[in-house]
Amino acid sequence: MSTPTDAGYARQLDAADPLAPLRERFVNDDPDLIYLDGNSLGRLPAATAALADGLVRGQWGGRLIRGWNEGWFDAPERVGAKIARLVGAEPDEVIVADSTSVNLFKLAVAALRRQEGRARILSDDLNFPSDVYVLQGAADVLGGGRRVELVASDDGIHGPAAAIATALDGDTALLSLSHTVFKSGFIYDMAALNAAARAAGALTLWDLSHSVGSVPVELRASGADMAVGCCYKYLNGGPGAPAFLYVRRELQEQLLNPIAGWMGQRDLFAFEMQYRPAAGIRRFLSGTPPVISLSLVEPGVDLLLEAGMDRLRAKSIAQTEYLIGLWEQLLAPLGFRLNSPRDPALRGSHVSLGHDQALGVDLALIREGRVLPDFRAPDNIRLGIAPIYTSFGEIHAAVMRTQEIVAQGRHLPYLEETPTVT
Amino acid sequence: MSTPTDAGYARQLDAADPLAPLRERFVNDDPDLIYLDGNSLGRLPAATAALADGLVRGQWGGRLIRGWNEGWFDAPERVGAKIARLVGAEPDEVIVADSTSVNLFKLAVAALRRQEGRARILSDDLNFPSDVYVLQGAADVLGGGRRVELVASDDGIHGPAAAIATALDGDTALLSLSHTVFKSGFIYDMAALNAAARAAGALTLWDLSHSVGSVPVELRASGADMAVGCCYKYLNGGPGAPAFLYVRRELQEQLLNPIAGWMGQRDLFAFEMQYRPAAGIRRFLSGTPPVISLSLVEPGVDLLLEAGMDRLRAKSIAQTEYLIGLWEQLLAPLGFRLNSPRDPALRGSHVSLGHDQALGVDLALIREGRVLPDFRAPDNIRLGIAPIYTSFGEIHAAVMRTQEIVAQGRHLPYLEETPTVT
Repeated sequence: MSTPTDAGYARQLDAADPLAPLRERFVNDDPDLIYLDGNSLGRLPAATAALADGLVRGQWGGRLIRGWNEGWFDAPERVGAKIARLVGAEPDEVIVADSTSVNLFKLAVAALRRQEGRARILSDDLNFPSDVYVLQGAADVLGGGRRVELVASDDGIHGPAAAIATALDGDTALLSLSHTVFKSGFIYDMAALNAAARAAGALTLWDLSHSVGSVPVELRASGADMAVGCCYKYLNGGPGAPAFLYVRRELQEQLLNPIAGWMGQRDLFAFEMQYRPAAGIRRFLSGTPPVISLSLVEPGVDLLLEAGMDRLRAKSIAQTEYLIGLWEQLLAPLGFRLNSPRDPALRGSHVSLGHDQALGVDLALIREGRVLPDFRAPDNIRLGIAPIYTSFGEIHAAVMRTQEIVAQGRHLPYLEETPTVT
Repeated sequence: MSTPTDAGYARQLDAADPLAPLRERFVNDDPDLIYLDGNSLGRLPAATAALADGLVRGQWGGRLIRGWNEGWFDAPERVGAKIARLVGAEPDEVIVADSTSVNLFKLAVAALRRQEGRARILSDDLNFPSDVYVLQGAADVLGGGRRVELVASDDGIHGPAAAIATALDGDTALLSLSHTVFKSGFIYDMAALNAAARAAGALTLWDLSHSVGSVPVELRASGADMAVGCCYKYLNGGPGAPAFLYVRRELQEQLLNPIAGWMGQRDLFAFEMQYRPAAGIRRFLSGTPPVISLSLVEPGVDLLLEAGMDRLRAKSIAQTEYLIGLWEQLLAPLGFRLNSPRDPALRGSHVSLGHDQALGVDLALIREGRVLPDFRAPDNIRLGIAPIYTSFGEIHAAVMRTQEIVAQGRHLPYLEETPTVT
């Protein structure tokens, strides 16, 4: 019988995987390439490739302006309603719009204005840096002493949940965190922090970018007020695909979108000079959405719905556990550290490995190993597992290639290079 | 010899048109359909259709995350630099980002913060309503008594340039206008108003959405401070294509993007917790751009550069003059009013015709006439001429079909319908 470090063991796991056939629903012209960066940019679904031609040639080229009445106007809500099913929201609580940063800005400003008299925005030092920039920018625009305060993580891996709960007070307007932390993959207990925030009178605003499509999220049941998230990672929506936002239904009419664009106006074609926000979630739209990029999000979401978040999460845990087991036996002896939580319940779908020569390892993996991970300065390699298309065989091969490269010192010549986006 | 109302006359004009061959560079599967809504959504360039497949299957599907280093990161600046040549700017003064509304918000907030102590934002009542919403929203977010004041047009057609110049004062922070007015097509004298604004210490922020690609604009030479514009009208960039923004080079470092996203950060991959704006125009980026929609903008811009703005403008004037001549003889007797300036120097590339039964005419043209104009409530039909692909023959046929429909009363059954986006 094969042991976990054998390729045959991975083959057995793939043979027993009920989601394995979904891998064939993605374009893959280069089967030797091991893609472990689906947490940065998800693969292209075959259905999306097929849709693209119909969108460009058929809808834009053929229907011209009539396309707006034949699906484009509804696309932000239609795709949003599908994403809602992935994050435990009602269909009228999610809409696709703009980028994650712009959505975060819109909701943060709206929330801060509703929370007049409270000056603190609470976050943590594991949050994605640009979320912190955006929050600080929202505070600066509104003024009045508003400011972001970052609660520090003890170990750089686990989120400081207890310290955050303690820090929430009557001056806290907003608590904004990444639900799954971009570097370590740590997952916050959303329900617990939502309850703590509510008890302090603070609103919550979650960034789901590293959760949606890989980690079950129950926005409504957990009492979340607002959320944003990106569509180009586990949702497989395409490079820079527009983002989504969620606002709890009861809160929608209490918030005003600061970027009062015409797509969020109550009557688009009345051309009134006075802005009147649309009812419901549409008020959080601003300008005209990029229809092609937005429409291409839909088939990827459909695939995730077909797979089911429970099955995806089960496979994701099985795969990160398998990867961590291989790390323990094959990579830890070579100086790799586990920079993700060891407890799968606290861990999302990517595994971070630290190494003193991480940049060299990353570049050697890309150029010689035919493995695409991603690198996060200064010392972190992220191995992103997208359970909808990642196989156990790929995880095994990636670890074996990593072991071979580092054991042979083939990463050393790359140490001097400047990091790039991959 | 044929007279202007004959089809033969239109054929002669087309035969003599040096830009006529460019029409073949656009997808047109339905040659009987007369498309006069390029001022809302431009046609699909054949090169764009070809690019789409390469972008989706080749770049996203095949190159995956590596696409970022192979053109995606540079796309906002690369396409921006090409648009700069259409609007008289330097290559490092224009960048493609977000939507027109979001860009207007970013620049308005940045300008208002730089203009501390001045409370007035001046615009006119011919501006696109959502520009006014966005400006008012920017004023509201910043507070301090900031407010939008609209100078009224005398006739609803011509912009109140003299009254605006008079209204500029030491309390005016910002003058923001549509360069070409969306309804009437009136064009402001940008240089004169820039000078007047500068004399009063106010900054200028122009919306070029109805100018770019159809009307020559000299941002730099005319002393414009800032501008925004959309890429889906005369630039033929696709439905909801991302917009562009311009900031005069000398002003760039004085303005702070209020939506401090990671694409505008000085070092994207340092992951610092403190935002440091990028040097130059890149600081006005916020989140990750929608790569597919953004990249599809480029071939349309290339086509306009190939045609040349001077030739496009000359043909546009010839075509709007021809259309107005036909209106005078064939449509004015049926109750159509000219809602655009009669002087071609003051008129952009669309012609607005008013009619008491305009909605019925619009719907009958679409459903029975195979003409696609657009309708702007309450009584306005816009006939958009895109000189790069509109032929004189189409203009003639559109007028003849309009005349026939109205003379026969075939528009009357449509009068009760609700307007739609077309």
